[in-house]
Amino acid sequence: MLKECEVKSGDKKEAAAELKELRNVLASQQQLLRDAKLPVLVLIEGWAAAGKGSLIREMIREIDPRFYNVVSSAVIPEKEMRYPFLYPYASAIPENGKIVFMDSGWMEDTVRKFLHREITPGEYRRRIRQVNEFERQLRDGGYLVLKVFLHISKDEQFERLSMLKGHADTEWRATDEDLWQHREYKRFVAAYEDFMEKTQVACKWHVLSAANRKCAARDTMKLLTGMITEGLKNGRYVGEPFKEEFPLIEMPKLKDVDLSPAISDEEYSKKLKKLQARLHELHNILYRLKIPVVLCYEGWDAAGKGGNIRRVASPLDPRGFDVRPIASPEPHELNRQYLWRFWTRLPRSGHICIFDRTWYGRVMVERLEGFCKEKDWQRAYNEINEFERQLTDWGAVVLKFWIHIDQDTQLARFTDRQNTPEKQWKITDEDWRNREKWDQYEVAVDEMLQKTSTENAPWYIIESNDKKYARIRTLKIIVKALEEAIEKDFENKMK
Amino acid sequence: MLKECEVKSGDKKEAAAELKELRNVLASQQQLLRDAKLPVLVLIEGWAAAGKGSLIREMIREIDPRFYNVVSSAVIPEKEMRYPFLYPYASAIPENGKIVFMDSGWMEDTVRKFLHREITPGEYRRRIRQVNEFERQLRDGGYLVLKVFLHISKDEQFERLSMLKGHADTEWRATDEDLWQHREYKRFVAAYEDFMEKTQVACKWHVLSAANRKCAARDTMKLLTGMITEGLKNGRYVGEPFKEEFPLIEMPKLKDVDLSPAISDEEYSKKLKKLQARLHELHNILYRLKIPVVLCYEGWDAAGKGGNIRRVASPLDPRGFDVRPIASPEPHELNRQYLWRFWTRLPRSGHICIFDRTWYGRVMVERLEGFCKEKDWQRAYNEINEFERQLTDWGAVVLKFWIHIDQDTQLARFTDRQNTPEKQWKITDEDWRNREKWDQYEVAVDEMLQKTSTENAPWYIIESNDKKYARIRTLKIIVKALEEAIEKDFENKMK
Repeated sequence: MLKECEVKSGDKKEAAAELKELRNVLASQQQLLRDAKLPVLVLIEGWAAAGKGSLIREMIREIDPRFYNVVSSAVIPEKEMRYPFLYPYASAIPENGKIVFMDSGWMEDTVRKFLHREITPGEYRRRIRQVNEFERQLRDGGYLVLKVFLHISKDEQFERLSMLKGHADTEWRATDEDLWQHREYKRFVAAYEDFMEKTQVACKWHVLSAANRKCAARDTMKLLTGMITEGLKNGRYVGEPFKEEFPLIEMPKLKDVDLSPAISDEEYSKKLKKLQARLHELHNILYRLKIPVVLCYEGWDAAGKGGNIRRVASPLDPRGFDVRPIASPEPHELNRQYLWRFWTRLPRSGHICIFDRTWYGRVMVERLEGFCKEKDWQRAYNEINEFERQLTDWGAVVLKFWIHIDQDTQLARFTDRQNTPEKQWKITDEDWRNREKWDQYEVAVDEMLQKTSTENAPWYIIESNDKKYARIRTLKIIVKALEEAIEKDFENKMK
Repeated sequence: MLKECEVKSGDKKEAAAELKELRNVLASQQQLLRDAKLPVLVLIEGWAAAGKGSLIREMIREIDPRFYNVVSSAVIPEKEMRYPFLYPYASAIPENGKIVFMDSGWMEDTVRKFLHREITPGEYRRRIRQVNEFERQLRDGGYLVLKVFLHISKDEQFERLSMLKGHADTEWRATDEDLWQHREYKRFVAAYEDFMEKTQVACKWHVLSAANRKCAARDTMKLLTGMITEGLKNGRYVGEPFKEEFPLIEMPKLKDVDLSPAISDEEYSKKLKKLQARLHELHNILYRLKIPVVLCYEGWDAAGKGGNIRRVASPLDPRGFDVRPIASPEPHELNRQYLWRFWTRLPRSGHICIFDRTWYGRVMVERLEGFCKEKDWQRAYNEINEFERQLTDWGAVVLKFWIHIDQDTQLARFTDRQNTPEKQWKITDEDWRNREKWDQYEVAVDEMLQKTSTENAPWYIIESNDKKYARIRTLKIIVKALEEAIEKDFENKMK
């Protein structure tokens, strides 16, 4: 792709005039974007000293600051990055109606680290897959995504870096990294080419000559305003459902689950103490090994999620875990792709994060209450499988619990809550309304369990008619999974 | 204070029983806190190995995760901390109805750095003042704040650190820092004492013996539940207005400002180009010197804020600045002290942040529309002066612009917007409603300008009947201020 791009200067004066025109076009599109609630992501990648920063400056000049954001993605050394690879980018996506300009991003981060041997070829391939998943999810979620690569020749780069180096005020801008890239120009050509060829699945790359800044700005603006015009004409895109083959674990139907298991108080106390002590130990080890843990809780109202979570949390060092209660989304969360509010709540490596309700709201409450389109929730099974695979690729242990009770038990607990003053806050009209939809929920939950219990991030149906039994069972599953993760980490290091 | 605290163990069994009781009390207070919308901040400080983490674990055991958060404040080396000293704490304050437990915070950060000579005695004194300001602002804003210091003797610390050191799994938890503290126990006693004595202005310290964990947890829980009971009884506290003497710059009344200054198109183009080029240079230098810049824009509707901001922003490298448009607060912002959403939007050192509307909303729209109590906005002048002094103490350049026009000019611009299709989005019914309150706003703005134009963070009234004149004047002020800041930085380093 780079070889096909002619790195020549165009007519500067003409470009400047056109650029001015295009800036006005973009300024007038702002308002339409806002009304259409279309989010726009512009990724500017390219050679060091190609002028990414000044290109963005040229583009934003006439836009109201309320409508855009510039995100500068420094390449963070792999060992310091305590989040999944895509975290900084997934956290920075625009709200509906706004434009985010990224000054380099997932491409530079990947290519540079690959050439530095900071990531293995296997990790490189995984990243390619993740990038394609990420971009497709954005596109299918209605995002307009523009990817531009600013191309300059090796000679041009030499001149620019020399110029920067030659002035006391600008010397610092030509970093050692940049000079290294210049020496390795040829290897970078091959690596950039490879990356671009492999990441065109959902959003294509545009390689532009940056020999002249005005021309590059004009060309990018043409692409951007063209994409927006197109987007406004077609309306917000809603991606089609699709299905990749994930290795799934077969799950029983909820109605076939035997809810009779119970435990005596005595056995409960004994086992609880033992399991909690073990979990405490394991947490210490995980912390040192920097293994992240994501525990997901879903379940019927009054099934006992809260008490279960408390028993898991209480032996943990509060410095190393967080419980994230998930309520209805706030306006700024609703205005972004639905996984955004979970991306931004991920634990750091070595930390445990317990989600009290999760991203599965998409295929339960949002499906049943019509908060999203049918295509949206149908697509979500696969998107969620991808999201969770990105977490386990990162090294996380991901476990998902469906805390299960039957309708009679729920009624008994609701009634108890209603009749006990200090528990009344726990029961709302919404709980009763949800109860009426039990059958619909059961269909949705069954489908969710079938489609998203992957080998890397399995579901566990926890029989919770007896809450104490449920707590012990959950703790056992967690302890076992963490022991396995530690064992696996050890094996990997011994290889 | 430390010397007065008896570091003895109490009756463990009795303490455990009381603790259980108190946990239930706290669990039942949760709901009342939520209803009363009272935010609670619990700061746990103390010796290394005193058991801060496990104490917090004991406390949260019965609380619903939706009601609390644990914040673990690592001490960040001064040179890596690219935000003001209080930033991590001010960013982590609880929402209404929730409890935040901080596992060490502003005390440890200050005492440790002082003893390490990472901060000077002058900086230490400044921090003491800032802590008192911060705590008072929280209290006056209705926060319940509990500060506990966990005390153990040198012998006890020795035993605990030895025990940690003695096991492979826990060895890493006794850090070099901790061992250093142990060796310097005596100096730490003096430093902790000094810090606590000087930071009791708004919220007092409770020194508790942590010789026995259960007893320490019981004692802290007593204090916490007691404070909450008291808080629920008294209702949300609204602080009294007060006035510290800040060095103020005398400001004219708005009505006395001569709005006739204008500039020719030719002169405008020439000066604009020159000033923008200079600003671009200065930004590069500031970036290297890591000097942060906070530019605040307020002004009448249609005064030309947006265009003015764009002229300032366009020469800046997008990697080094952000425009923060401030709209009405979101629910999660309304649920915290009003400065929280500005604390969390501060620039990193070396970056420029342009606020399009600011924290001054408190004494304008919130005052006039009754969004806060009279005492709240009256107190705000001083709170804002303190906030801005914290920014300039940090090294920031803070400049505030009131973009000023007269009523006739506003009417002409409103009408023009109304009649020009591509400008119509800029004019709303609210603008017309605000216009009707011009006189009330003028009173509020005059008072604001009188009370908050401090020498360290001055206001500039920008005559903007001629927008081009206004832009040149603003740019000149910014360029001059930045040149002075660079000069001052140079002088400081030469000292």
